Amino acid sequence: MPRMGNQVARDVPGVVIQRLPLYLQALRHIDGTGVEVVSSQELGDQLQFTPAQIRKDLSYFGRFGKQGRGYNVKRLHSELRRILGLNQQWNLALVGVGRLGRAILGYEGFAPRGFKVVAAFDADPTQIGKKVANITVQAMSELQATVRQHGIQICIVAVPPTEAQAALETLVKAGVKAVLNYAPWAGRVPNGMHLREVDPVLFLQSMTYYLKPS
Amino acid sequence: MPRMGNQVARDVPGVVIQRLPLYLQALRHIDGTGVEVVSSQELGDQLQFTPAQIRKDLSYFGRFGKQGRGYNVKRLHSELRRILGLNQQWNLALVGVGRLGRAILGYEGFAPRGFKVVAAFDADPTQIGKKVANITVQAMSELQATVRQHGIQICIVAVPPTEAQAALETLVKAGVKAVLNYAPWAGRVPNGMHLREVDPVLFLQSMTYYLKPS
Repeated sequence: MPRMGNQVARDVPGVVIQRLPLYLQALRHIDGTGVEVVSSQELGDQLQFTPAQIRKDLSYFGRFGKQGRGYNVKRLHSELRRILGLNQQWNLALVGVGRLGRAILGYEGFAPRGFKVVAAFDADPTQIGKKVANITVQAMSELQATVRQHGIQICIVAVPPTEAQAALETLVKAGVKAVLNYAPWAGRVPNGMHLREVDPVLFLQSMTYYLKPS
Repeated sequence: MPRMGNQVARDVPGVVIQRLPLYLQALRHIDGTGVEVVSSQELGDQLQFTPAQIRKDLSYFGRFGKQGRGYNVKRLHSELRRILGLNQQWNLALVGVGRLGRAILGYEGFAPRGFKVVAAFDADPTQIGKKVANITVQAMSELQATVRQHGIQICIVAVPPTEAQAALETLVKAGVKAVLNYAPWAGRVPNGMHLREVDPVLFLQSMTYYLKPS
């Protein structure tokens, strides 16, 4: 359920939630220029959204400004962070300690932004007990207990495509509600799980616009 | 320059270009349901965009439908693919053959969607000549010649953050115009280069919305 203080939460479409980090980026940029109040027109210019689109997206989360006065940049940024639950550290677990998993454990971009990988799991018995980036690899059978112990609600999955379905089923049984998946995979997302995929092709597909046909 | 047939290309904002792959996804989904013509309202429902936002985004690329008749789903999908330059295979090169780079070389999601990694480079002399996923790792000094030989316009960079700036400078000198960067990095993008970053935190930042504070 969305956390919205005393207001009644409407069911917010997933794609709107997925846009909020882009709003955060735009607001941080505007804040960096010293601007204190922005209109939906000015915020829209950053994101190439119409003012109506901006107002519609934000209206799901209540009122952030008085009609005609624009949004207080710092306040809107901080409210959106609160709405997204970003005012705390989130513990993550990694499933799959192959080449990709090891690279993810070494990724330096998580911790500065409030995400910390605290546990790692692998189905391969020869990996269990090995230490990678200060984390001891555990068996999948230990997943449920470890997830509870560390209050882990988000897992990163970096297993081969053929093993993804089984890993997701194990995770949902352990109570994990959110998964970031790295493997190309088109299986069935278990009920109650929020799955997002890191898809590098989506990025490539917009860059080709700027290139010459070969 | 945008490829637009006989029309005069307006300068399209980057964020609009970046949204086009989402339009492709939505159109593929609609096409899969058997619907042949969609209104901007219906297409907007998929993406949670207002009809005006949809019409504004598409207006950069000319007219795709007659006023009031909606868009032909298959035709719009195919036109957007053409505009993005996706009707051909793109050869890619990888720079950085560490753990992450090797995982990228093994990624199965590129080839089915028209992107093929055909060369790999590393600054570490001990890596040169090694074979990874059927590709022989080459020295950075060979980059320019190989890029020309294979008509490579896009590179994937998977080097440590401290080496990213030097790698980008080498690439832009070799004539590479588009880079997909995996390392967390906040340096200066060389002039004339289109850089996008695979940032897993952007995905995590929207999933936290659905979780309980811990």
